[in-house]
Amino acid sequence: MAYETPPDDAFLADFRSLSTIGATAGGGVDRQAATPVDGQSRTWFRGLMEGHGFDVHYDEVGNQFALLQLVPGAPYLVLGSHLDSQPLGGRFDGAYGVLAGAHAALRLAGRLAAEGRTPALNIAVANWFNEEGCRFKPSMMGSSVFTGKLPAEQALQTTDPHGVTVQQALEDIGTHGDFTLDIACYAEIHIEQGRSLEDAGLTIGLVESTWGANKYEFVVHGEQAHTGATVIADRHDALLGASSLVVAAREIAEQHSTDDHMVITSCGEFTVFPNSPVVVASQVKLLVDVRSTDADVLAAADAELHRRIADIEQRADVRIERGAEHIWDAKAYDQAGMELAAASADELGLSHGTVRTLAGHDSTNLKDIVPTIMLFVPSVEGISHNERELTSDEDMLDGVRMLTEVAGRVLAGEFVR
Amino acid sequence: MAYETPPDDAFLADFRSLSTIGATAGGGVDRQAATPVDGQSRTWFRGLMEGHGFDVHYDEVGNQFALLQLVPGAPYLVLGSHLDSQPLGGRFDGAYGVLAGAHAALRLAGRLAAEGRTPALNIAVANWFNEEGCRFKPSMMGSSVFTGKLPAEQALQTTDPHGVTVQQALEDIGTHGDFTLDIACYAEIHIEQGRSLEDAGLTIGLVESTWGANKYEFVVHGEQAHTGATVIADRHDALLGASSLVVAAREIAEQHSTDDHMVITSCGEFTVFPNSPVVVASQVKLLVDVRSTDADVLAAADAELHRRIADIEQRADVRIERGAEHIWDAKAYDQAGMELAAASADELGLSHGTVRTLAGHDSTNLKDIVPTIMLFVPSVEGISHNERELTSDEDMLDGVRMLTEVAGRVLAGEFVR
Repeated sequence: MAYETPPDDAFLADFRSLSTIGATAGGGVDRQAATPVDGQSRTWFRGLMEGHGFDVHYDEVGNQFALLQLVPGAPYLVLGSHLDSQPLGGRFDGAYGVLAGAHAALRLAGRLAAEGRTPALNIAVANWFNEEGCRFKPSMMGSSVFTGKLPAEQALQTTDPHGVTVQQALEDIGTHGDFTLDIACYAEIHIEQGRSLEDAGLTIGLVESTWGANKYEFVVHGEQAHTGATVIADRHDALLGASSLVVAAREIAEQHSTDDHMVITSCGEFTVFPNSPVVVASQVKLLVDVRSTDADVLAAADAELHRRIADIEQRADVRIERGAEHIWDAKAYDQAGMELAAASADELGLSHGTVRTLAGHDSTNLKDIVPTIMLFVPSVEGISHNERELTSDEDMLDGVRMLTEVAGRVLAGEFVR
Repeated sequence: MAYETPPDDAFLADFRSLSTIGATAGGGVDRQAATPVDGQSRTWFRGLMEGHGFDVHYDEVGNQFALLQLVPGAPYLVLGSHLDSQPLGGRFDGAYGVLAGAHAALRLAGRLAAEGRTPALNIAVANWFNEEGCRFKPSMMGSSVFTGKLPAEQALQTTDPHGVTVQQALEDIGTHGDFTLDIACYAEIHIEQGRSLEDAGLTIGLVESTWGANKYEFVVHGEQAHTGATVIADRHDALLGASSLVVAAREIAEQHSTDDHMVITSCGEFTVFPNSPVVVASQVKLLVDVRSTDADVLAAADAELHRRIADIEQRADVRIERGAEHIWDAKAYDQAGMELAAASADELGLSHGTVRTLAGHDSTNLKDIVPTIMLFVPSVEGISHNERELTSDEDMLDGVRMLTEVAGRVLAGEFVR
């Protein structure tokens, strides 16, 4: 079960190999959920884990689990993250966490076998389906279904922009199943995707809570007209309405951020219809999200957003419809898990500090159903969702050591409630 | 040659028939340039005109000409417009003008034959290729090549968003040729696409000039980043930059319009890359145009636009690149043609007034090489580039009578220089 090559070299070699799947010219990867390339990364991961004696299964929404049964009948400690990526995404986001989980599991399996000890739990490595949410919305789809927050049927019927369903896409790449997993607790390591660890000169971030996030889908309804013949007074310009909303969202972030609590607003997707050079747009669909570390600050920013929407409707003479929304409250991770992680880092001599995660992760879902530990390693310059995303080999290897130590303590029974 | 059914009924029947080609559920048409449906409308028009004894030819850029030789060797009076449409466009824009030209030509041919007179010119009806410019940019492509403003080779190599060239698309629908036409003068009738005739209660608009228009293609360059992890200070948000430009363009239109000279600004096309829900946009391509009836007012508005661009680059921390530009100066139509048209309307007892065209038309190009007359009929509520575009049967028929009278005078030699 144990590696014959030095374990750090083995990890780096596997990471380089994984990074070739869907590799882009700019040094990133493009592995959007349930595409053929995502299928390749899943099959590669299956081969890797089966080669080390793990059993690999898929659940009803395509979550991939590599299992090593150490104690017949016991539930599982799950280490995981995701192998899917953004279009032109970085090669570390998610992939690092899955592979770090795999190597932590391999090292522990080897250690337990060598020492002849029996752990309290079995161990599994998870590759959660569609964490990114770019091809199929919402993000964190697989872990949302797994934790009962999203009905499986609804996820499976979700379509991509070409009308392909999740179910069809999963079947096409052969990674749809019916496995169910008995989970006891969860740990995840991820690149920070921000610069707080780098700025503070720390190696390990102990995630203490998620930010609160209100995510909205808006549709701005105008009226199609000829740009070359329709005077301003007669226009109902959906593009003007949507653009005003983008500008207002930025202003709200700036005005509502305080010294203690930052507000961040974003518009990532913005689709204009009919998008012809000489036609006033009849409709724009856009996503707006508002995030903050503080619930009251978030509520005030959100109220301001909705007040501004009413102004924009009048100003651009359009109607703004609010569609689906996804609300995540700011929530704390398990305090005992934080302490276990801090003790692990101290044991290994790794510098560490507490951080909050602005981004959502699969652990955001898992922490609501089982004891969960979330760890970060530094991102160079905080760059993420970008081909230039980077974490140093040294930081990656320290992260694997950290996750191995944490998982070893959990397997020994330190963290089971 | 003459119709056996009453000519007004024949026109309306042909117009209804033409309107079924590419008909949309909302009462409009979708006949984007050189699509299979545009090919159908061209083939239908060929059949119609050949059935009445005309010869039909295509030139090097797919302009379609239906010719009736009345005086061997003489050059042609051309009546024309375009059969292509916007996506979800109206059924009158362009199509009305081509069919009105066809029926005016048929009526005159019948009249000349009955009276045994020999005219000064031959007569042709033109369906100019790609007036709309939505699938292939720029608009007025066919008439731009015909008038020597755009090299044929450049037009033919232009690609649509799927990489298909104009040449390939024209060959696919069988409407690419090598015909050349000896043109003496040009007349076009079109729906107004504005509401000045309706507001003034007039039936015929005599177009005295085009508005000046500066059209720009901008590319806003930002930096791809994770919306959920990148703080505001670290963002280079191309979508914020582009949205600010859309908002600024509207403000400029409002601030620079005077009682005498209106300024109109538009953004019709706006494409976000990578357009993923959780990614700060790295790039937005958008078109902005500024129009005015006065050259000085236009110049002032244009200068303000470029000053605002510099502000936006700083504010959103992005770079805004100006790509292709198309500049049309405000230009007058032929004064003798205006007088000929006014006399024609008076002869027929049709109310008329002078108007300026805010939109570009094929006549905008033709007027720069031959004596040209441009006429409008009213648009209900000024609605255009919209399935709800409407011109009444009565106004359409008055327009056909008007064009017939104008063309009859031109054929008789009143307008040839």
